[in-house]
Amino acid sequence: MISVAVDTMGGDYGEKPIMQGLVQALREKAFKAILVGNEKRLKPLIPNDLMQYISFEQADEIFPMEESATEALKHKQSTIYKAVELVREKKAQAVVSAGHSGATMSLATLRIGRVKNVVRPAIATLMPNTHSKTLFLDVGANVDCKSEHLFQFGVMGEAYAKVLMNIAKPRIALLSNGEEETKGNELTKESHLLLKQLESFVGNAEGRDIFNGSIDVLVCDGFSGNVILKACEGTATAIFKILKSEVKQSLLASLGAMLMRGVFSKLKKHIDWQEYGGAPLLGINGCVIISHGKSDARAIKNAMLQALLFSESNINKVIEDELAKYDK
Amino acid sequence: MISVAVDTMGGDYGEKPIMQGLVQALREKAFKAILVGNEKRLKPLIPNDLMQYISFEQADEIFPMEESATEALKHKQSTIYKAVELVREKKAQAVVSAGHSGATMSLATLRIGRVKNVVRPAIATLMPNTHSKTLFLDVGANVDCKSEHLFQFGVMGEAYAKVLMNIAKPRIALLSNGEEETKGNELTKESHLLLKQLESFVGNAEGRDIFNGSIDVLVCDGFSGNVILKACEGTATAIFKILKSEVKQSLLASLGAMLMRGVFSKLKKHIDWQEYGGAPLLGINGCVIISHGKSDARAIKNAMLQALLFSESNINKVIEDELAKYDK
Repeated sequence: MISVAVDTMGGDYGEKPIMQGLVQALREKAFKAILVGNEKRLKPLIPNDLMQYISFEQADEIFPMEESATEALKHKQSTIYKAVELVREKKAQAVVSAGHSGATMSLATLRIGRVKNVVRPAIATLMPNTHSKTLFLDVGANVDCKSEHLFQFGVMGEAYAKVLMNIAKPRIALLSNGEEETKGNELTKESHLLLKQLESFVGNAEGRDIFNGSIDVLVCDGFSGNVILKACEGTATAIFKILKSEVKQSLLASLGAMLMRGVFSKLKKHIDWQEYGGAPLLGINGCVIISHGKSDARAIKNAMLQALLFSESNINKVIEDELAKYDK
Repeated sequence: MISVAVDTMGGDYGEKPIMQGLVQALREKAFKAILVGNEKRLKPLIPNDLMQYISFEQADEIFPMEESATEALKHKQSTIYKAVELVREKKAQAVVSAGHSGATMSLATLRIGRVKNVVRPAIATLMPNTHSKTLFLDVGANVDCKSEHLFQFGVMGEAYAKVLMNIAKPRIALLSNGEEETKGNELTKESHLLLKQLESFVGNAEGRDIFNGSIDVLVCDGFSGNVILKACEGTATAIFKILKSEVKQSLLASLGAMLMRGVFSKLKKHIDWQEYGGAPLLGINGCVIISHGKSDARAIKNAMLQALLFSESNINKVIEDELAKYDK
């Protein structure tokens, strides 16, 4: 049975949503959860019939959000440190944390280590598109990238799409400011040439292609990925805010909005990141799922299920073997 | 009276929307328009009473969209080349083009030249936010930037906000992947240190801040700016597409959507780039407005009015003087 180390104290809302999400996940699928945190506080949150799946790892320190990720190694009593150690010591196959993502990333890289042949692990996230989902990476692990990193992100993204999204022939694209091969900055032009080695590489794509279903995996440097992610969230938030304030000013429109309630909630569900679990850190010799700090129970449940699927799969072997092909 | 050189053939939909937009602008404000294109085809599109404001500059070649911007100097008979020449020869103060933006940019830089002290001109665009508008630059002129360029974008953006958006104390921010000064890639960390010299600099901002009204000007490199712009367009398009397809499946929701029609059209107007005219190319020794290839008459009208405001102002003098301060 897969063991998942759960950082119970990292999220913005404390232990409750994390434990609720865990309980929901355990009702769907059997696995072992090692809860890293304060046993006394956690125990009352677990129904008796699920206790057989639970063990505890005492840790009382929350890694501070304002702390720099480079300090992560010093906080040996933090929940995130101890959770990562469980994977390092092979007591768990996966770790799920809604805490300081920089710390999680740096601990994962330094303590668990990388998959063989991987130069830089990358944070991958699933974005909704009009048809289904697009895998987008890197969204923040590496703010300064070289072309060889972007090439490896392409290989890792392809592996994720094939193994975990069940796409036989995923379409891998490189983010640029135009579709033509000649478009882009120095980094993307160089990366384009390397990515051409991949059979599944379909060329450059633009920001809008994340959402129109024309690609399955979009590769970029971690700076662009991160700013885009937040700009898109900002766009959606602004649209709904403007809509709401306009609706308030008209009785007819309010009635209309009521009739459209079902549609709005379907839309919200479709574009809501909480539905998509967390962001896997690809290239780590284990499974590390980074959840949003503001995750609710549903997001945590989905992150747990994602961790299980990842851990049951052979994705890291696929990444290692694929990269070995191009090392020659 | 201000003279505007109009590239009548650059847009994706030919001369018609451009001429319609011009006529609408002339009905609002008196100015001289030099129409660069085919006089025979253009003349019938102008009402007799407006003919006094019009002159013609014959040009029959459309600069091809698939051509590289570096070829722009060779196409001396193209409408965009001839329109730019009119500004170079001081026969016009401004040029408006919905054609090949790369060609417009490179011709403007090479033929009209830069404002004194400007190293790299930048394309600035107005983005809707929940309160009013955010000026966002560079959105594509410079895909590879140095920190001194980003610093200058800050100065130019500040000048535009003060002079043309009438914001006495604009809040200038630098796009990064976190608000803390230590966040960012090498370029943004260096740029942050330079931008701190500006009194109006409020620090780093994230992608979402474009839309929440917390800043007035957002500075970034042209690659990030361009991909973000398109990703945000993509987000909005996807939201409306999903909404539409969900509405179609429910009679009640369709009724709701009908009742909300007024609200939707207000929202559309608020977030529609066509309302915002074109994107000024800041740092050129004249006024160059780059319009979207898919501009309708309204977008062209707004671009014309924007060109007039720009040309009547002293913005280029302000940019020159401000940059001189920091040159010391």
